[in-house]
Amino acid sequence: MIHFRAIGKIMGGLLFLLGTLMLPASAISWFYREDSSPILISAAISLFMGLVLFFSFSKQDQLVRKREGYMIVALSWLLMTLFGMIPFILSDEVTTTADAIFETVSGLTTTGASILTDIESMPKGLLFWRSMTHWIGGLGIIVLTVAIFPLLGIGGIELFVAESPGPTSDKVHPRISETAKRLWYIYVGLTVLCALLYWAGGMTLFDAFNHSFATLATGGFSTKNSSFAYYNSAFLEYVAILFMFLAGTNFTLLYFGLVGKFRRIIRNDEFKTYALVVATLIVAVLVPIYSQSGSEFESAFRKSAFQVVSIITTTGFITDDYTQYGSGVTFTFFMLLFLGGCAGSTAGGIKFIRHTVFLKNSWLEFKRIVHPRAIVPLIINGDRVTGRIINNIMNFLLIYLLTFVLGVLIISLLGYDLATSLGSVATCLGNVGPAIGKVGPVDNFAFFTPGAKIVLSVIMLLGRLELFTILILFTPFFWRAN
Amino acid sequence: MIHFRAIGKIMGGLLFLLGTLMLPASAISWFYREDSSPILISAAISLFMGLVLFFSFSKQDQLVRKREGYMIVALSWLLMTLFGMIPFILSDEVTTTADAIFETVSGLTTTGASILTDIESMPKGLLFWRSMTHWIGGLGIIVLTVAIFPLLGIGGIELFVAESPGPTSDKVHPRISETAKRLWYIYVGLTVLCALLYWAGGMTLFDAFNHSFATLATGGFSTKNSSFAYYNSAFLEYVAILFMFLAGTNFTLLYFGLVGKFRRIIRNDEFKTYALVVATLIVAVLVPIYSQSGSEFESAFRKSAFQVVSIITTTGFITDDYTQYGSGVTFTFFMLLFLGGCAGSTAGGIKFIRHTVFLKNSWLEFKRIVHPRAIVPLIINGDRVTGRIINNIMNFLLIYLLTFVLGVLIISLLGYDLATSLGSVATCLGNVGPAIGKVGPVDNFAFFTPGAKIVLSVIMLLGRLELFTILILFTPFFWRAN
Repeated sequence: MIHFRAIGKIMGGLLFLLGTLMLPASAISWFYREDSSPILISAAISLFMGLVLFFSFSKQDQLVRKREGYMIVALSWLLMTLFGMIPFILSDEVTTTADAIFETVSGLTTTGASILTDIESMPKGLLFWRSMTHWIGGLGIIVLTVAIFPLLGIGGIELFVAESPGPTSDKVHPRISETAKRLWYIYVGLTVLCALLYWAGGMTLFDAFNHSFATLATGGFSTKNSSFAYYNSAFLEYVAILFMFLAGTNFTLLYFGLVGKFRRIIRNDEFKTYALVVATLIVAVLVPIYSQSGSEFESAFRKSAFQVVSIITTTGFITDDYTQYGSGVTFTFFMLLFLGGCAGSTAGGIKFIRHTVFLKNSWLEFKRIVHPRAIVPLIINGDRVTGRIINNIMNFLLIYLLTFVLGVLIISLLGYDLATSLGSVATCLGNVGPAIGKVGPVDNFAFFTPGAKIVLSVIMLLGRLELFTILILFTPFFWRAN
Repeated sequence: MIHFRAIGKIMGGLLFLLGTLMLPASAISWFYREDSSPILISAAISLFMGLVLFFSFSKQDQLVRKREGYMIVALSWLLMTLFGMIPFILSDEVTTTADAIFETVSGLTTTGASILTDIESMPKGLLFWRSMTHWIGGLGIIVLTVAIFPLLGIGGIELFVAESPGPTSDKVHPRISETAKRLWYIYVGLTVLCALLYWAGGMTLFDAFNHSFATLATGGFSTKNSSFAYYNSAFLEYVAILFMFLAGTNFTLLYFGLVGKFRRIIRNDEFKTYALVVATLIVAVLVPIYSQSGSEFESAFRKSAFQVVSIITTTGFITDDYTQYGSGVTFTFFMLLFLGGCAGSTAGGIKFIRHTVFLKNSWLEFKRIVHPRAIVPLIINGDRVTGRIINNIMNFLLIYLLTFVLGVLIISLLGYDLATSLGSVATCLGNVGPAIGKVGPVDNFAFFTPGAKIVLSVIMLLGRLELFTILILFTPFFWRAN
């Protein structure tokens, strides 16, 4: 028996929250003397439906267990999509349902792929709501990481997010843990700080907050058609590089940094890999950019750093078209779509902890072949990793790649060329934004058929929710369990 | 201490055997009144060097253990390449060393990718030797599967090859086991039967044996520029489909079939998956071929079956350009490059047992998530598969894909486009032959730079020797072991 009443009540709370978060966007509409009714009506619908759901269900006697956890995760993103897209539809700025779904899912999953061809002509209130979907998605991911994923025990990475509460009991802890609060403070604090720096660097306050939302959520929606290239400001780009990098870092580590526990950061294997890979790739990509673009060294360095950090952290802001430097650089950026930031950040994708565990373990596997009777443990962050977790992680990697391949098969069967199919699926599954082929850094997703947009939306959700939370709903085991 | 003398003696025996196997090719040269000296001299060199090596080393006191096993595997294919390419060089038909290496490695690894642009103008003796490299490679793989891989315990599939002797002791069994003999009889028997049927179907006896070598070894070298399309014969194509399918089947199962133990075949999970996937894909690919090619139904069916079986079994004969039916079909065939035949066959690639274990286990993983305390064993062929083996297989799959990605990165950095880079590396790693992009079914590999040809040759060897046998030689664990 699934505890539907408990789920219903939580969904009601969520919708009420979503409606509340639409109010700032309608205030922006009003401030800029635009028609604020579309967003105001949307907010009213969400608030009303939220209250109805909340008070229709009494959860007195119902607990949220593992199974409810899965349904809550899936339903949350589904409901947020259905209600979050209403402002797009009511404002008439997005003409088809598929477009509205794609743009909203892209926002909530912090992907940042867009079907809008002229962003700057959009009403400011709607743009603000669009950026808010990123920020709400980022918030949501922090809740999932801290409160839900450890309970569900999937994907094998929950144990590496330091201070995560762990699967101590079979129900969600009734009050949101101290950890979640801390991470929210960091998320909100960094958002404000980033916005102020963007403002100081010459953005309008409106643009500053929009871009800050997209930065901290590792989203990538911009209020300008040419993304960050519009500003052509070294200061703004370095601020963005720094905050994208921070947004891709495990937020618990940022907390440790804030309270001076730097040793915890230095000892963290995932962060070390993340920092090392980012640094190495900036240098590697700098070579072709410097030799081919004719830019000065600092400018070439900035281009390389911006693009590498933006793609690895799954943000997707752009200041340079990386597909112009030949097929080797293009393929390098295609590969970066599969990295993802750190676990416990707002970044999507596979995430560095999984790469670290896989690569370290594969290396040890050779040792195990040579010494079949020796016990060769895998050590991460000073602790031994169990075979169960290693198994989980390898399985996740393979299911991720299988999902990718099947996605590409579907998109290519719909008639799109190889590079576009590979690129669009990789970037949606990894929640990045730009890719290769016809969805390169200077393109958008408008040209896809409605069917393809729905497929890509599903892929974004699968990637954002760590695959298993969604896929498990389609197995008999889930429904048969008692 | 590595027992180099034991290795040296075995290498001597191998070279002597290689030289002996060149003699039929020089006889063909003589028969067709060509200059038989290039192959005769090559044979003499191999025979002489073989004898020198064999008698230089006394292995009286030295055993072949696990470590010697790895070196023997790597050195065997290296030496066979170095000596097997001499006929190409001496005959002046292949002008660069890179070309000679590529063609010989492609033969010995049963890949079948070619740098020859006009096959029909080549001397018949050399063509026969070229086909022989396939057949010798196939022979070698049977030895590895039966005698060496179980000892080395890598890749996790040795236990699924029925009747494989298993890692009973730490040295190779001195006499080649009964199993190996049986499989050789089947290999030789099927080769002769296939050749006779090709002959009966209208091929010259020369062509019949050449194509039969390439069929049973799942190689793909043809003596005609347009491969099987040259003959335009339904009978020949059906014979090829049947024998390619058999060559991709576990030879132990073929033995069971021969002695009437059909139940063993029906109960074999790998064979069931193999047969099911082949059948499904023939139907799936038939739809676009029938609707787009304007062929009659039987002809469309034959085209679909031929291409699907040829690619899945990693043979690579061609009767139709599968890249002409749109990007969906093209991508489907690209995916097929990653299947491979059954373990214990001459097919290259990942192999169905690994796919079967991975997919079955992933499905059970969902069950394990729902019931974390339950023991959910994976059953293959009626036996429980240990976590160790599952781990091995998932690790193999991931290392295979990592090798693929790094290969594509290198080829794309050398300046080749995305489809060509993806296709050439996938087809070389899977030992298939044709691919997509500029190395599609009607193309060849002549246009690659010498550097790219060497890289692709290394990739063919890595794929053929199940990755780990080669990669382990580059780890400190191997050299440090005592």
